[in-house]
Amino acid sequence: MSKQVLPIVDSDANACCAPLASEPLSEGEAAELAPLFKAIADPVRLRLLSLIACHEGGEACVCDLTVAFDLTPPTISHHLKVLRQAGLIDSQRRGTWVYYWINPAVLARMSALIGPVPPALAGTA
Amino acid sequence: MSKQVLPIVDSDANACCAPLASEPLSEGEAAELAPLFKAIADPVRLRLLSLIACHEGGEACVCDLTVAFDLTPPTISHHLKVLRQAGLIDSQRRGTWVYYWINPAVLARMSALIGPVPPALAGTA
Repeated sequence: MSKQVLPIVDSDANACCAPLASEPLSEGEAAELAPLFKAIADPVRLRLLSLIACHEGGEACVCDLTVAFDLTPPTISHHLKVLRQAGLIDSQRRGTWVYYWINPAVLARMSALIGPVPPALAGTA
Repeated sequence: MSKQVLPIVDSDANACCAPLASEPLSEGEAAELAPLFKAIADPVRLRLLSLIACHEGGEACVCDLTVAFDLTPPTISHHLKVLRQAGLIDSQRRGTWVYYWINPAVLARMSALIGPVPPALAGTA
Protein backbone atom coordinates (compact mmCIF):
# COMPACT_ATOMS: atom_id res chain seq x y z
CA MET A 1 0.00 0.00 0.00
CA SER A 2 1.35 3.42 -0.84
CA LYS A 3 -0.14 6.84 -1.23
CA GLN A 4 0.23 8.49 -4.59
CA VAL A 5 3.10 10.96 -4.70
CA LEU A 6 1.69 14.23 -5.92
CA PRO A 7 3.65 17.11 -7.39
CA ILE A 8 4.83 19.83 -5.05
CA VAL A 9 3.41 23.21 -5.94
CA ASP A 10 6.06 25.58 -7.19
CA SER A 11 5.44 28.41 -4.76
CA ASP A 12 7.85 30.70 -6.67
CA ALA A 13 5.63 30.51 -9.72
CA ASN A 14 2.78 32.02 -7.75
CA ALA A 15 4.86 34.35 -5.62
CA CYS A 16 3.73 37.60 -7.15
CA CYS A 17 0.58 36.90 -9.17
CA ALA A 18 -2.40 35.10 -7.78
CA PRO A 19 -4.37 33.79 -10.75
CA LEU A 20 -7.35 35.54 -9.15
CA ALA A 21 -5.73 38.84 -10.05
CA SER A 22 -3.88 37.82 -13.20
CA GLU A 23 -6.81 37.09 -15.51
CA PRO A 24 -10.57 36.75 -15.05
CA LEU A 25 -11.73 33.26 -14.11
CA SER A 26 -13.72 31.53 -16.81
CA GLU A 27 -17.19 30.20 -16.10
CA GLY A 28 -15.83 26.66 -16.28
CA GLU A 29 -13.00 27.30 -13.84
CA ALA A 30 -15.36 29.04 -11.41
CA ALA A 31 -17.80 26.13 -11.61
CA GLU A 32 -15.00 23.68 -10.82
CA LEU A 33 -13.52 25.70 -7.96
CA ALA A 34 -16.68 26.82 -6.15
CA PRO A 35 -17.54 23.32 -4.80
CA LEU A 36 -14.04 23.03 -3.32
CA PHE A 37 -14.53 26.21 -1.33
CA LYS A 38 -18.03 25.09 -0.38
CA ALA A 39 -16.57 21.91 1.08
CA ILE A 40 -14.41 23.91 3.49
CA ALA A 41 -17.05 26.58 4.17
CA ASP A 42 -17.89 24.91 7.48
CA PRO A 43 -16.05 25.23 10.82
CA VAL A 44 -16.09 21.49 11.57
CA ARG A 45 -14.73 20.60 8.12
CA LEU A 46 -12.02 23.27 8.36
CA ARG A 47 -10.94 21.82 11.71
CA LEU A 48 -11.04 18.26 10.37
CA LEU A 49 -8.87 19.26 7.42
CA SER A 50 -6.43 20.97 9.77
CA LEU A 51 -6.33 18.01 12.17
CA ILE A 52 -5.62 15.62 9.32
CA ALA A 53 -2.95 17.89 7.81
CA CYS A 54 -1.23 18.31 11.20
CA HIS A 55 -1.34 14.67 12.19
CA GLU A 56 1.93 12.81 12.55
CA GLY A 57 2.82 11.18 9.25
CA GLY A 58 0.25 13.29 7.38
CA GLU A 59 -2.63 10.92 8.01
CA ALA A 60 -5.14 10.49 10.79
CA CYS A 61 -7.30 7.63 12.02
CA VAL A 62 -11.00 8.48 12.29
CA CYS A 63 -10.65 7.45 15.95
CA ASP A 64 -8.25 10.40 16.50
CA LEU A 65 -10.57 12.82 14.74
CA THR A 66 -13.78 11.90 16.52
CA VAL A 67 -12.35 12.57 20.00
CA ALA A 68 -11.48 16.17 19.04
CA PHE A 69 -15.15 17.15 18.65
CA ASP A 70 -18.22 17.19 20.82
CA LEU A 71 -20.14 15.58 17.96
CA THR A 72 -21.41 12.07 17.26
CA PRO A 73 -19.32 9.72 15.08
CA PRO A 74 -22.00 9.75 12.33
CA THR A 75 -21.80 13.57 12.18
CA ILE A 76 -18.00 13.44 11.89
CA SER A 77 -18.35 10.75 9.21
CA HIS A 78 -20.75 12.97 7.28
CA HIS A 79 -18.29 15.87 7.28
CA LEU A 80 -15.41 13.59 6.27
CA LYS A 81 -17.54 12.29 3.42
CA VAL A 82 -18.17 15.85 2.16
CA LEU A 83 -14.42 16.55 2.20
CA ARG A 84 -13.69 13.24 0.45
CA GLN A 85 -16.36 13.74 -2.21
CA ALA A 86 -14.91 17.18 -2.98
CA GLY A 87 -11.53 15.50 -3.43
CA LEU A 88 -9.82 17.34 -0.57
CA ILE A 89 -8.98 14.16 1.32
CA ASP A 90 -8.52 10.50 0.52
CA SER A 91 -9.12 7.55 2.80
CA GLN A 92 -8.37 3.90 3.28
CA ARG A 93 -9.81 1.32 5.64
CA ARG A 94 -7.20 -0.70 7.54
CA GLY A 95 -8.73 -3.26 9.86
CA THR A 96 -11.15 -1.59 12.25
CA TRP A 97 -10.39 2.01 11.35
CA VAL A 98 -10.49 4.32 8.36
CA TYR A 99 -7.44 6.56 7.82
CA TYR A 100 -7.56 9.95 6.11
CA TRP A 101 -4.95 12.13 4.43
CA ILE A 102 -4.94 15.43 2.53
CA ASN A 103 -5.00 15.45 -1.28
CA PRO A 104 -2.36 18.16 -1.79
CA ALA A 105 -3.09 18.66 -5.50
CA VAL A 106 -6.64 19.82 -4.77
CA LEU A 107 -5.53 22.07 -1.93
CA ALA A 108 -2.88 23.49 -4.24
CA ARG A 109 -5.51 24.46 -6.84
CA MET A 110 -7.39 26.46 -4.23
CA SER A 111 -4.20 27.96 -2.89
CA ALA A 112 -3.04 28.98 -6.37
CA LEU A 113 -6.27 30.88 -6.89
CA ILE A 114 -6.44 32.96 -3.76
CA GLY A 115 -2.90 33.58 -2.73
CA PRO A 116 -0.50 34.99 -2.06
CA VAL A 117 -2.04 38.41 -2.50
CA PRO A 118 -0.12 40.34 -5.16
CA PRO A 119 1.56 43.53 -3.90
CA ALA A 120 -0.31 45.50 -6.59
CA LEU A 121 -3.57 44.72 -4.76
CA ALA A 122 -2.15 44.91 -1.27
CA GLY A 123 -0.81 48.42 -1.63
CA THR A 124 -3.25 50.25 -3.89
CA ALA A 125 -3.92 53.82 -2.76
CA MET B 1 -10.71 60.08 -1.07
CA SER B 2 -8.18 57.32 -0.72
CA LYS B 3 -8.32 53.62 -0.17
CA GLN B 4 -6.74 52.29 2.97
CA VAL B 5 -3.22 50.96 2.41
CA LEU B 6 -3.15 47.46 3.79
CA PRO B 7 -0.05 45.47 4.67
CA ILE B 8 1.49 43.31 1.99
CA VAL B 9 1.53 39.66 2.95
CA ASP B 10 5.04 38.35 3.42
CA SER B 11 4.84 35.38 1.07
CA ASP B 12 8.23 34.08 2.28
CA ALA B 13 6.86 33.67 5.78
CA ASN B 14 4.28 31.20 4.50
CA ALA B 15 6.49 29.57 1.89
CA CYS B 16 6.88 26.21 3.57
CA CYS B 17 4.26 25.91 6.30
CA ALA B 18 0.61 26.46 5.70
CA PRO B 19 -1.01 27.12 9.08
CA LEU B 20 -3.49 24.42 8.09
CA ALA B 21 -0.72 21.89 8.50
CA SER B 22 1.28 23.58 11.22
CA GLU B 23 -1.15 23.38 14.12
CA PRO B 24 -4.81 22.41 14.49
CA LEU B 25 -7.24 25.28 13.94
CA SER B 26 -9.08 26.34 17.06
CA GLU B 27 -12.88 26.39 17.16
CA GLY B 28 -12.76 30.20 17.19
CA GLU B 29 -10.47 30.43 14.17
CA ALA B 30 -12.56 27.93 12.23
CA ALA B 31 -15.75 29.85 13.05
CA GLU B 32 -14.15 33.07 11.77
CA LEU B 33 -12.72 31.56 8.60
CA ALA B 34 -15.63 29.38 7.44
CA PRO B 35 -17.88 32.34 6.45
CA LEU B 36 -15.07 33.74 4.27
CA PHE B 37 -14.88 30.49 2.31
CA LYS B 38 -18.66 30.34 2.18
CA ALA B 39 -18.71 33.77 0.54
CA ILE B 40 -16.56 32.51 -2.34
CA ALA B 41 -18.24 29.09 -2.55
CA ASP B 42 -20.26 30.27 -5.54
CA PRO B 43 -19.17 30.46 -9.20
CA VAL B 44 -20.62 33.93 -9.77
CA ARG B 45 -18.94 35.36 -6.67
CA LEU B 46 -15.63 33.75 -7.58
CA ARG B 47 -15.81 35.36 -11.02
CA LEU B 48 -16.82 38.72 -9.56
CA LEU B 49 -13.87 38.61 -7.18
CA SER B 50 -11.56 37.72 -10.05
CA LEU B 51 -12.95 40.47 -12.31
CA ILE B 52 -12.50 43.07 -9.57
CA ALA B 53 -8.97 41.87 -8.76
CA CYS B 54 -7.97 41.93 -12.45
CA HIS B 55 -9.49 45.27 -13.25
CA GLU B 56 -7.19 48.11 -14.21
CA GLY B 57 -6.21 50.07 -11.14
CA GLY B 58 -7.49 47.29 -8.85
CA GLU B 59 -11.05 48.56 -8.76
CA ALA B 60 -14.10 47.99 -10.92
CA CYS B 61 -17.30 49.91 -11.57
CA VAL B 62 -20.46 47.87 -11.08
CA CYS B 63 -21.25 48.81 -14.70
CA ASP B 64 -18.18 46.83 -15.85
CA LEU B 65 -19.12 43.83 -13.73
CA THR B 66 -22.76 43.55 -14.77
CA VAL B 67 -21.95 43.28 -18.48
CA ALA B 68 -19.74 40.21 -17.86
CA PHE B 69 -22.70 38.08 -16.74
CA ASP B 70 -25.96 36.92 -18.20
CA LEU B 71 -27.66 37.90 -14.94
CA THR B 72 -29.86 40.79 -13.87
CA PRO B 73 -28.27 43.78 -12.09
CA PRO B 74 -30.14 42.96 -8.83
CA THR B 75 -28.65 39.45 -8.87
CA ILE B 76 -25.15 40.84 -9.38
CA SER B 77 -25.80 43.36 -6.60
CA HIS B 78 -26.86 40.56 -4.29
CA HIS B 79 -23.62 38.64 -4.91
CA LEU B 80 -21.53 41.79 -4.46
CA LYS B 81 -23.33 42.42 -1.16
CA VAL B 82 -22.44 38.90 0.06
CA LEU B 83 -18.76 39.50 -0.80
CA ARG B 84 -18.85 42.92 0.87
CA GLN B 85 -20.57 41.65 4.02
CA ALA B 86 -17.91 38.93 4.34
CA GLY B 87 -15.27 41.66 4.12
CA LEU B 88 -13.70 40.39 0.90
CA ILE B 89 -14.39 43.59 -1.02
CA ASP B 90 -15.02 47.22 -0.19
CA SER B 91 -17.04 49.71 -2.18
CA GLN B 92 -17.69 53.40 -2.67
CA ARG B 93 -20.36 55.27 -4.57
CA ARG B 94 -19.05 57.95 -6.92
CA GLY B 95 -21.80 59.77 -8.77
CA THR B 96 -23.97 57.29 -10.66
CA TRP B 97 -21.87 54.21 -10.06
CA VAL B 98 -20.56 52.10 -7.20
CA TYR B 99 -16.90 51.04 -7.40
CA TYR B 100 -15.51 47.86 -5.82
CA TRP B 101 -12.04 46.74 -4.82
CA ILE B 102 -10.52 43.72 -3.10
CA ASN B 103 -9.77 43.82 0.63
CA PRO B 104 -6.33 42.18 0.48
CA ALA B 105 -6.03 41.60 4.25
CA VAL B 106 -9.06 39.30 4.24
CA LEU B 107 -7.89 37.45 1.14
CA ALA B 108 -4.48 37.08 2.79
CA ARG B 109 -6.02 35.38 5.85
CA MET B 110 -7.62 32.77 3.62
CA SER B 111 -4.47 32.39 1.58
CA ALA B 112 -2.33 31.94 4.69
CA LEU B 113 -4.56 29.09 5.83
CA ILE B 114 -4.67 26.94 2.72
CA GLY B 115 -1.42 27.51 0.96
CA PRO B 116 1.09 26.99 -0.31
CA VAL B 117 0.92 23.26 0.34
CA PRO B 118 3.89 22.20 2.48
CA PRO B 119 6.24 19.71 0.78
CA ALA B 120 5.74 17.33 3.71
CA LEU B 121 2.11 16.89 2.63
CA ALA B 122 2.76 17.08 -1.08
CA GLY B 123 5.26 14.26 -1.13
CA THR B 124 4.11 11.77 1.51
CA ALA B 125 4.50 8.16 0.45
